[in-house]
Amino acid sequence: MRTFQQIAPLRTYLRGIRQEGKTIGFVPTMGALHAGHMSLVKRAAQDCDLVVVSIFVNPTQFGPTEDFTSYPRVLQQDLQVASNSGVDAVYTPAVEDIYPDGFQTTVTPGALAQRLEGQHRPGHFAGVCTVVAKLLNIVQPDRAFFGQKDFQQARIIEQMVHDLNFPYEVVVAPTVRADDGLALSSRNAYLSQEERLAATALNEALNEAARAHLAGEKSPQALSEIVRERCLKEPLVSLEYCEIANNISLEPIEDVDSCNAVILVAARVGKTRLIDNIVLPTRLS
Amino acid sequence: MRTFQQIAPLRTYLRGIRQEGKTIGFVPTMGALHAGHMSLVKRAAQDCDLVVVSIFVNPTQFGPTEDFTSYPRVLQQDLQVASNSGVDAVYTPAVEDIYPDGFQTTVTPGALAQRLEGQHRPGHFAGVCTVVAKLLNIVQPDRAFFGQKDFQQARIIEQMVHDLNFPYEVVVAPTVRADDGLALSSRNAYLSQEERLAATALNEALNEAARAHLAGEKSPQALSEIVRERCLKEPLVSLEYCEIANNISLEPIEDVDSCNAVILVAARVGKTRLIDNIVLPTRLS
Repeated sequence: MRTFQQIAPLRTYLRGIRQEGKTIGFVPTMGALHAGHMSLVKRAAQDCDLVVVSIFVNPTQFGPTEDFTSYPRVLQQDLQVASNSGVDAVYTPAVEDIYPDGFQTTVTPGALAQRLEGQHRPGHFAGVCTVVAKLLNIVQPDRAFFGQKDFQQARIIEQMVHDLNFPYEVVVAPTVRADDGLALSSRNAYLSQEERLAATALNEALNEAARAHLAGEKSPQALSEIVRERCLKEPLVSLEYCEIANNISLEPIEDVDSCNAVILVAARVGKTRLIDNIVLPTRLS
Repeated sequence: MRTFQQIAPLRTYLRGIRQEGKTIGFVPTMGALHAGHMSLVKRAAQDCDLVVVSIFVNPTQFGPTEDFTSYPRVLQQDLQVASNSGVDAVYTPAVEDIYPDGFQTTVTPGALAQRLEGQHRPGHFAGVCTVVAKLLNIVQPDRAFFGQKDFQQARIIEQMVHDLNFPYEVVVAPTVRADDGLALSSRNAYLSQEERLAATALNEALNEAARAHLAGEKSPQALSEIVRERCLKEPLVSLEYCEIANNISLEPIEDVDSCNAVILVAARVGKTRLIDNIVLPTRLS
């Protein structure tokens, strides 16, 4: 496995790969790699000849009161995990390589970024779009892979790539869950044992709502109430939002069967902020 | 010469070109092609195997009171000019191809776009950056060519490409002038005969200041005053700004010899708004 800290040698290496006619799959990450990331790597290896992973904890997507400094940084462990998973190249830039002196141009997402996470984390998605645009342009992959766990992020990146005509394909792959259903996230490492148990309420709440939908419940308010009630049973879980939205526009929907809907939740579990979601199928009846 | 209105066939054509190992030069324009554009085409043809010109009057870079609707649109004439100049392909998208329903992601320039034109045309450079990012991603040129006449625009685009790591090279080529020195611009077509004569004051004012600088004048205030006084002699010319700026940061400078400086001017000539500039050499003494 090759590792690169600098843009120029990475680009030289990738130019050689492209000249051999090989396709490049790219998995941008903030490190603390877990099975969720590795499922993206596996998918990338299926779809492309070569897999590049970036590890960069991007300061501009963290708010001033958020966990930028405490975000888990375990580079040596990550390199081992990546190497064992068949990753071909890891790119680990320094902050000053991504944001050199004089840096000033950003990518600004639109309406998709105003709601949900955007309301609770102002500036977050502008930071995400800007760094993803940069990483895409540095790697120039044939395909880039993102996890459905960050549903809104994935939609915003799809929209950015479409709106700005980036010549890269975005692939969104399913959320990977622990045996008890908790969506894998690097932030799960913050949870105490007690919080870790309580956190399963999020996935269970989403599943309860999905079952109710399958059984005929069409009202977003009713589905949302099911999620709220399940979360209320866990004193350690404090629901921040639960929204039933169109899975393309992320706008709230009136009738769950009028379009494919997604239920999106964010919650505090102790001090840790977690998000999760479930896409509801459109019923044929 | 090939012409394309749609993204997909243009991309297919250009993919074939790249697969042949040929390099692509790109000249984005708003049409009403003149010798300034053609000098960019000539430069592109020298540097690259193939020259692509886009013609698109971009609505998002015009303010609500500006000349979007009256901007000269002479497509048939432009195609003739391009064809006669050895352009290989012209891309003429419709507004709805560039900004389809749901379009929402933009590129936001930074400090470079706050001053000069940015102060007089709010939002202008965000519109420019967004459309240029899109066009670059659609064409994926090896090199893109911009005129020095739009000095601030060229600097902002260079900065955007650098900041967002676009894998395209930006080339800025010298301003082309009429025999009497007026910088060529599609907007010169708005000038009456009398205004056209008066407009030469801009270039003459810049040259007077450059001569004074060469003769030892170091004060930005004094150089600016020379420009102002020359323009005041033309009642049809109303100077909007004259700034002596660092030619990289575009910040005002104190000592003209501390760095390469550029004098940037904007003026109304009748109702027509024109811009021009001159880069001052750093003196060795």
